[in-house]
Amino acid sequence: MTKKVSVVEKILSANDQLAVENRSRLDEAGVFAINIMASPGAGKTSLIEQTLPRLSEKFRVAVVDGDIATSIDADRASEAGALAAIQINTGGNCHLDAVMLKQALDQLDLKDFDLLLVENVGNLVCPSNFPLGTHKSILVASVPEGDDKPYKYPGMYRGVDALIINKIDLMPYIPFKMDYFRRGVEILNAGLITFPISCTTQEGVDEWINWIIENVEDK
Amino acid sequence: MTKKVSVVEKILSANDQLAVENRSRLDEAGVFAINIMASPGAGKTSLIEQTLPRLSEKFRVAVVDGDIATSIDADRASEAGALAAIQINTGGNCHLDAVMLKQALDQLDLKDFDLLLVENVGNLVCPSNFPLGTHKSILVASVPEGDDKPYKYPGMYRGVDALIINKIDLMPYIPFKMDYFRRGVEILNAGLITFPISCTTQEGVDEWINWIIENVEDK
Repeated sequence: MTKKVSVVEKILSANDQLAVENRSRLDEAGVFAINIMASPGAGKTSLIEQTLPRLSEKFRVAVVDGDIATSIDADRASEAGALAAIQINTGGNCHLDAVMLKQALDQLDLKDFDLLLVENVGNLVCPSNFPLGTHKSILVASVPEGDDKPYKYPGMYRGVDALIINKIDLMPYIPFKMDYFRRGVEILNAGLITFPISCTTQEGVDEWINWIIENVEDK
Repeated sequence: MTKKVSVVEKILSANDQLAVENRSRLDEAGVFAINIMASPGAGKTSLIEQTLPRLSEKFRVAVVDGDIATSIDADRASEAGALAAIQINTGGNCHLDAVMLKQALDQLDLKDFDLLLVENVGNLVCPSNFPLGTHKSILVASVPEGDDKPYKYPGMYRGVDALIINKIDLMPYIPFKMDYFRRGVEILNAGLITFPISCTTQEGVDEWINWIIENVEDK
């Protein structure tokens, strides 16, 4: 005889269960956390370098950097003013997961921080399937990647709370149709808040900073 | 009692076993196949668009395009002169595998072709772990991604037979140290054949085309 068990409530995967625990730890300590995702080279680390000095008088900021290998990104975050920068080497894994973030949180005295920036592994597919327990997920797109990326990587665009369009200083040199790009985004994630910026010229960075400040203060 | 089975010969994974079968089918039909991998937006499709018209008098070329969603790339390959263009939508999967390539090969009358270009899903991590059965694997890097990518995504750089550095026309606008980039590549894959090119200005494309011609003719 085969028995059937009806599952009415959604059962969380091990990852998602741990993400809930990470969120509770962050909330108890009063830390607002942002998961920053992007393609390799879209400018996650450059964005963090632009962000840290502008927030360091207002908030105590920690950074967790996920990479296949090296500590290049955590080193850059430290130099840019992160009070703590933890490098997670995933050892070949193509995304951060909630276990890895838990291990990083274990290294931090969370009550000493107001804001945690998590830089995910560069990948437009896999990270979107692994919630970490952060409060917001953002995607850094970039002009040189091309204007068709929302259409080709819908899962990532669908799941984020804000979108940065980086490297807009390269618009004169690249055939990037902003209207076509934005239409793709709008189909997947209507009304998504979007920040066109350049980490090189610093255009648009202030709007992104204000969004973070509002979020941390409203927490 | 626990029994132990000693495994002396390497056991192929299901994927790798199927890759061997794909290779046999390609060899029997006389088709030379290249697996093209890259980050999203590095320029795989643009490279294929530059490549097809230059080869169409010499070889009969088919293209297999892997994407999470859409048939944008296969449409572009058709327009650029591919005799056949098969779109594989991976349905969220972050890489092509040998099963998917098998399904694409089933759609082609292989003896009608000399060359097969396989455009993998844009991803600098996962595709390197799934051999397809192609004869060569190449990586398309691009200047806007930044010069630290070999250090951060070593698995991909380690496993390829040739490297394209695309978008070199953007060098004046981007802080990309070619020496630093090349040192990273050399550590991972000594003597790797490298083609600096621009799909926009067409600089360097001929050297890449000659490499393909030599490979197909030596087959």
